Amino acid sequence: MSEYFEGIGKIQYEGPETENPLAFRFYDENKVVAGRTMKEHLRFAACYWHNFCWNGFDIFGAGTFDRPWLQPGDEMEMAKAKADVAFEFFTKLGVPYYSFHDVDVTPAGNSIKEYIANMGVMMDYLAKKQEETGMKLMWGTANAFSHPRYMSGAASNPNPEVFAYAATQVFTAMNATKDLGGENYVLWGGREGYETLLNTDLRQEREQLGRFMQMVVEHKHKIGFDGTLLIEPKPAEPTKHQYDYDTATVYGFLKQFGLENEIKVNIEVNHATLATHSFQHEIATAISLGLFGSIDANRGDYQLGWDTDQFPNSVEEWTPVLYDILKAGGFTTGGCMFDTKLRRQSVDKADFFHGHVGAMDTLAYSLEKAAELLDNDVLGANVADRYAGWSQDFGKSILAGDQSLESIAKYAIDNEIDPAHVSGKQEYLENVVNKVLCK
Amino acid sequence: MSEYFEGIGKIQYEGPETENPLAFRFYDENKVVAGRTMKEHLRFAACYWHNFCWNGFDIFGAGTFDRPWLQPGDEMEMAKAKADVAFEFFTKLGVPYYSFHDVDVTPAGNSIKEYIANMGVMMDYLAKKQEETGMKLMWGTANAFSHPRYMSGAASNPNPEVFAYAATQVFTAMNATKDLGGENYVLWGGREGYETLLNTDLRQEREQLGRFMQMVVEHKHKIGFDGTLLIEPKPAEPTKHQYDYDTATVYGFLKQFGLENEIKVNIEVNHATLATHSFQHEIATAISLGLFGSIDANRGDYQLGWDTDQFPNSVEEWTPVLYDILKAGGFTTGGCMFDTKLRRQSVDKADFFHGHVGAMDTLAYSLEKAAELLDNDVLGANVADRYAGWSQDFGKSILAGDQSLESIAKYAIDNEIDPAHVSGKQEYLENVVNKVLCK
Amino acid sequence: MSEYFEGIGKIQYEGPETENPLAFRFYDENKVVAGRTMKEHLRFAACYWHNFCWNGFDIFGAGTFDRPWLQPGDEMEMAKAKADVAFEFFTKLGVPYYSFHDVDVTPAGNSIKEYIANMGVMMDYLAKKQEETGMKLMWGTANAFSHPRYMSGAASNPNPEVFAYAATQVFTAMNATKDLGGENYVLWGGREGYETLLNTDLRQEREQLGRFMQMVVEHKHKIGFDGTLLIEPKPAEPTKHQYDYDTATVYGFLKQFGLENEIKVNIEVNHATLATHSFQHEIATAISLGLFGSIDANRGDYQLGWDTDQFPNSVEEWTPVLYDILKAGGFTTGGCMFDTKLRRQSVDKADFFHGHVGAMDTLAYSLEKAAELLDNDVLGANVADRYAGWSQDFGKSILAGDQSLESIAKYAIDNEIDPAHVSGKQEYLENVVNKVLCK
Amino acid sequence: MSEYFEGIGKIQYEGPETENPLAFRFYDENKVVAGRTMKEHLRFAACYWHNFCWNGFDIFGAGTFDRPWLQPGDEMEMAKAKADVAFEFFTKLGVPYYSFHDVDVTPAGNSIKEYIANMGVMMDYLAKKQEETGMKLMWGTANAFSHPRYMSGAASNPNPEVFAYAATQVFTAMNATKDLGGENYVLWGGREGYETLLNTDLRQEREQLGRFMQMVVEHKHKIGFDGTLLIEPKPAEPTKHQYDYDTATVYGFLKQFGLENEIKVNIEVNHATLATHSFQHEIATAISLGLFGSIDANRGDYQLGWDTDQFPNSVEEWTPVLYDILKAGGFTTGGCMFDTKLRRQSVDKADFFHGHVGAMDTLAYSLEKAAELLDNDVLGANVADRYAGWSQDFGKSILAGDQSLESIAKYAIDNEIDPAHVSGKQEYLENVVNKVLCK
Repeated sequence: MSEYFEGIGKIQYEGPETENPLAFRFYDENKVVAGRTMKEHLRFAACYWHNFCWNGFDIFGAGTFDRPWLQPGDEMEMAKAKADVAFEFFTKLGVPYYSFHDVDVTPAGNSIKEYIANMGVMMDYLAKKQEETGMKLMWGTANAFSHPRYMSGAASNPNPEVFAYAATQVFTAMNATKDLGGENYVLWGGREGYETLLNTDLRQEREQLGRFMQMVVEHKHKIGFDGTLLIEPKPAEPTKHQYDYDTATVYGFLKQFGLENEIKVNIEVNHATLATHSFQHEIATAISLGLFGSIDANRGDYQLGWDTDQFPNSVEEWTPVLYDILKAGGFTTGGCMFDTKLRRQSVDKADFFHGHVGAMDTLAYSLEKAAELLDNDVLGANVADRYAGWSQDFGKSILAGDQSLESIAKYAIDNEIDPAHVSGKQEYLENVVNKVLCK
Repeated sequence: MSEYFEGIGKIQYEGPETENPLAFRFYDENKVVAGRTMKEHLRFAACYWHNFCWNGFDIFGAGTFDRPWLQPGDEMEMAKAKADVAFEFFTKLGVPYYSFHDVDVTPAGNSIKEYIANMGVMMDYLAKKQEETGMKLMWGTANAFSHPRYMSGAASNPNPEVFAYAATQVFTAMNATKDLGGENYVLWGGREGYETLLNTDLRQEREQLGRFMQMVVEHKHKIGFDGTLLIEPKPAEPTKHQYDYDTATVYGFLKQFGLENEIKVNIEVNHATLATHSFQHEIATAISLGLFGSIDANRGDYQLGWDTDQFPNSVEEWTPVLYDILKAGGFTTGGCMFDTKLRRQSVDKADFFHGHVGAMDTLAYSLEKAAELLDNDVLGANVADRYAGWSQDFGKSILAGDQSLESIAKYAIDNEIDPAHVSGKQEYLENVVNKVLCK
Repeated sequence: MSEYFEGIGKIQYEGPETENPLAFRFYDENKVVAGRTMKEHLRFAACYWHNFCWNGFDIFGAGTFDRPWLQPGDEMEMAKAKADVAFEFFTKLGVPYYSFHDVDVTPAGNSIKEYIANMGVMMDYLAKKQEETGMKLMWGTANAFSHPRYMSGAASNPNPEVFAYAATQVFTAMNATKDLGGENYVLWGGREGYETLLNTDLRQEREQLGRFMQMVVEHKHKIGFDGTLLIEPKPAEPTKHQYDYDTATVYGFLKQFGLENEIKVNIEVNHATLATHSFQHEIATAISLGLFGSIDANRGDYQLGWDTDQFPNSVEEWTPVLYDILKAGGFTTGGCMFDTKLRRQSVDKADFFHGHVGAMDTLAYSLEKAAELLDNDVLGANVADRYAGWSQDFGKSILAGDQSLESIAKYAIDNEIDPAHVSGKQEYLENVVNKVLCK
Repeated sequence: MSEYFEGIGKIQYEGPETENPLAFRFYDENKVVAGRTMKEHLRFAACYWHNFCWNGFDIFGAGTFDRPWLQPGDEMEMAKAKADVAFEFFTKLGVPYYSFHDVDVTPAGNSIKEYIANMGVMMDYLAKKQEETGMKLMWGTANAFSHPRYMSGAASNPNPEVFAYAATQVFTAMNATKDLGGENYVLWGGREGYETLLNTDLRQEREQLGRFMQMVVEHKHKIGFDGTLLIEPKPAEPTKHQYDYDTATVYGFLKQFGLENEIKVNIEVNHATLATHSFQHEIATAISLGLFGSIDANRGDYQLGWDTDQFPNSVEEWTPVLYDILKAGGFTTGGCMFDTKLRRQSVDKADFFHGHVGAMDTLAYSLEKAAELLDNDVLGANVADRYAGWSQDFGKSILAGDQSLESIAKYAIDNEIDPAHVSGKQEYLENVVNKVLCK
């Protein structure tokens, strides 16, 4: 396909003062912050689906976007045209990575055999596009939720044949991800959940899901895929209840099936807030459980109860999160992926870029602020001081397992302990953060 | 103390037609339903705290209730007067069980030594009251959240001395619970959580909490307490985030510390809904994970974001839950405990009884409906039928671990599978339930 | 089109004991309750759109339903086939009314002229179907939210030409509604709201909306339409914020534009709960403001933040609502309309009927219970007693405007008033309701 | 009382670079921004109640704060000591205004006569404090929700004597506010709402509330109070439903009772978000309805369903709000009042200052950013351009009332209109805001 985004060239870093809305003000990919370049830290990825597979429809209205490659026509030609536009976009935007579901890039076909055949063709096409452009694959995944066959779940489906169809897609998409040099493989259980408990056997479905994930791990090792496996938690939508509700829930699931060292989480901002958690909560929880993997950087709306997948625009939300991530050593195979949707009214071609450029600048700016917070780590020093008692003898003996309720009670009574009240300093600490944000 | 509820005698079962608002219409403790008496099934308990330790204050207003035993005076005399009223109430109501926190029944004193001494006196007093009345103890617990020393948590406190104070209370309350023949011991981590992540070390606090729970388990075995240990999940309030968020989260915690066979959950209706789960979700999840223990039968308000602790009045909410519980074998050591609060405007003495009598009737009626659902188990038959494929060869081989992604993909492609769409029958199943509820 | 629901005949009333899932257990249209037949009280209507214009797609997946009339083909022929199926369904179900949007029944065409022409043809077709079947039109409405032109609103659109397009549709749909003998005309402002305040002039959009509604009222009188005009409140979805947020908000809007005696509200259960109100709250508020018109009887899910449009199945939710409505004199031109969606997994033809039959029985049973509550109006007597002071001299003088803050203060001080605390009796009153519900 | 905040002097402006946490970095009261000094723009006020009348208790725990003036003792002496500390704080903080409820500053006494007498003494005391310090009164109000007599409402109480008690307090507090030179008088209907519809007559309570507000307006004019009357909306808490739900609801109420030109709204950030609105929504709505009065600048927590009353710390939340306010002409009699609570763990005296200083800096910084947005009003220009069609002939004729549905339909058909799709530019506009926020 010929150039789609005519008149828009590669987005350049022009610095904070630029008046050009289609330039980066903060994202300078080669700028070094906290020991790495911004490109290395943030590991930006753009997505295939919301950008190129969605025409702007919502549940109350038809598509508003003009997307020639989604019109009727030869499916494979259309898929290639879509790939051309996608790579034109990725390249012009200047993200190093992209991500896809199998059926974003490949026509699903009318049978499982057609699906396999189409995947073969399109994976070659993507390989060629990657080679031509230098784009890399952040992660691949299989869409096992859109087709009607998955209406009652994929791995957790009451019908083993649906499980088998999903397994075939994941098998194929994992192989493709490995072949394309993908750095992660994601599993979002979009319909792994229930609509009503009246027809659901929770224990049975959990067993199915557990075995499925074990097979995914086994397959990873069998084919020598050295990327990271990621589960993406979400509490609900489209299902009434989704099994991978949040990070803490996924942790319990992984522990049950012995997978806690094999699978990490891909945290979406919008999914965190739909689960009534702050974004930082989910990140901090994942880090504390050793599960932190990657991020879908799209936000929700605090007044709305569904996935709005908006572009991130809050430095205040991202700075503490990137501080936590930097402190934990930064991303390894993961990164910041934009699972973002244009607003349905954003019908101009330039809107693609306004959304992503603003998002990348928001995160780049937040990264600088996070590095600054870490540089002079007042927060860290305060935390260390607050828990200092646990590094002293009594505290250490408790955590070492050398005490019992009885021995502690004896200590407490004998010493007539009466612990002092110490300020939690929340307001002060919030000011410490704002000191970095407001200059 | 002399009779407090003058003019109100023991509540009697008078049957559905009675016009007496202070009689049971459905709760006939000796009536046999599904193989046991209602008393054995429902195992009702009333609570000490909301009934006898709260004067009706809320965050915007002062106490509205006339509670003579909460007035200034000799603390130990007041505690005994309170116990007298409480047992008068429990007895007149006709619940077989009650529950308490240590400091509900015992003045906390001005030092840890006074606390221990007061507990000694009051536990003797309770033992005497139990003997006189035949009341039994459903569970005991320690309040490690109301005193200012616990403002930053108990076991998860940054200060090991606060941990030690809490350990002393739990040690004492567990011993008391055993001595009083308690059938369970509950741990609600009311302030085990955080107010702000800016001052919190999640991993550290989790380690503290894990070790605490291990010591609780060790102590149980050491003293030969044969009741059940129960964690009560709640997502938030009073803290911004509470670690025992919901059942699935507690499961992950228990797995991490090797406690999943030692501790079960005490599910509160109101806590379930505050966690954006249905009550049935939490019960079904607990059953499916082998964690179901007991219930706090107080509901919330779907439009409000805090604990309202209202009396249960929905047969529609309780029938499917009791169906699930009956199907799983019923309560063992747990039961239905009313952690309920009178509305602040319910200032009459009779309101105590209106609340509890209505609640007990609601659950008794629901139990009959649940038994009826189970008797002719259309729901169960539908579920069995829906998952039938997993009992056949292919499904069984998957769950038995005899398949891989690759072998399944081969099967799927070779057989060109194209699974049929089967109705989930939700509307039909909802009608099946209503067929039992509406006569 | 030939018979679609083969094997399903007209749904019959068979009484509570029937084992036939496709029979009414409670809805006996000729049964007299509280002075009218059930048919006259409940005035059931089924909807065109969710039943016949939706293929089961959601935002994460494709349609699951087999709907031959939604396949490609001659649009007008398909529209007629759809009407045939719709009327087959309405007739077999036995609801006296149906409802539609203009473009549910009529192809929108490729131009405004085609739209007008198609409407002409299809309105004749509907007239003929009505005559053949005896079905009546509860209400008509114009869909001014699904077409991309309405992405930024209809009457509140920044572009007057879009306003004009919507006005043309409403003009046409109102005329059609009158011609078809419709008893109401509904306006749901699905995109009358904003996505972001950054691009929105609230005052301007409100003026546009106000003028639009005035023109609707003027047109009603001009054409002599004697049905009721109804605004349907909803807080959000698809927009971030919808102007007709809830009943109280609509009231302020109507007052501003002098329309409070011309337009009433159509309350949807699901919209009430999305606005963080109980269903009863919205009904009671509308009644108290003189705005009560009609009901969309589809419920939401208390754990989900979007419109699920489920079939009503809660007698506990409906009984107090129908009590309020009976007390206020019952429906006039409005009724109980099922704006309900089958679950996406309910792919069987019979599921259409399971959903509606269960819903109609739920409301019929609730009606009987409401009548019983009203018959022996303990609730009403309690309310009358509670406010009795306002019928005495002092209270009356206040409401009559005969007092000032100063005169009241003088009275209060002179009389050293010290009002007694009187129980609100909430628990008792909840039991009064359950006494009727549980037998 | 002698100096309470020992060691803390008057907070000074020291500029962005200061390392002193108890200095202003941005709030320089004499700095001119957009034509006025920061002091004139922001009109900061601190509150009496959360700071000096609350000991840190919550519903699950006892007070954590050391507040000598809340200890037992001579009530009037304690009230004076409290006033001394309060004015020490206000003065050191450097806010020009303060606010109070009658019973924050005055012991309520054991009778209505004692209340009146105490008010007389304490108002003199406050007058003296104001004179000594130069502090001014932003607003006064009467607390008609904390005393048990108000458990079922004040003006909406079923008992006219309770109405009379509230009227006496409001009469007294309004007079006092006038005498102290207060610039506004606030009415927050904390218990004007219902707990259950089962015992509530909505129409009756609304009439009572309407007449009450009319009397307030009449009294204002009678005594020549030239400040502004303000209603403070809140959706719920402590009641299940509060009548002054949000700004749009208050507007309808005011219209019904002919008060829309007499009363404005006092918008609290936390109340906005509890009503599922954004803060900016409530401000923009109030401005568009001509009701904007004043602000309670305390925020909530997006994950929690109750009033947390936290200190504002989000420049991102405040900048668009202050932009809207500046554009509408700025505050007149209102201002930014901190109805803020320290976190219960913030037990140090310095925490009072950390909270307020950070809050004032957040708003001062946001004011500068808002002025910058306005200076180069890209947002305003975009809005003007978006609605340009309404300034042209066709649009104007519609709003002028010169068109009917019929005339518009004729126009639309004759011209075969087919409106173009125009981007809403949301992502671009969000970047415009961030261009000002991130430098």
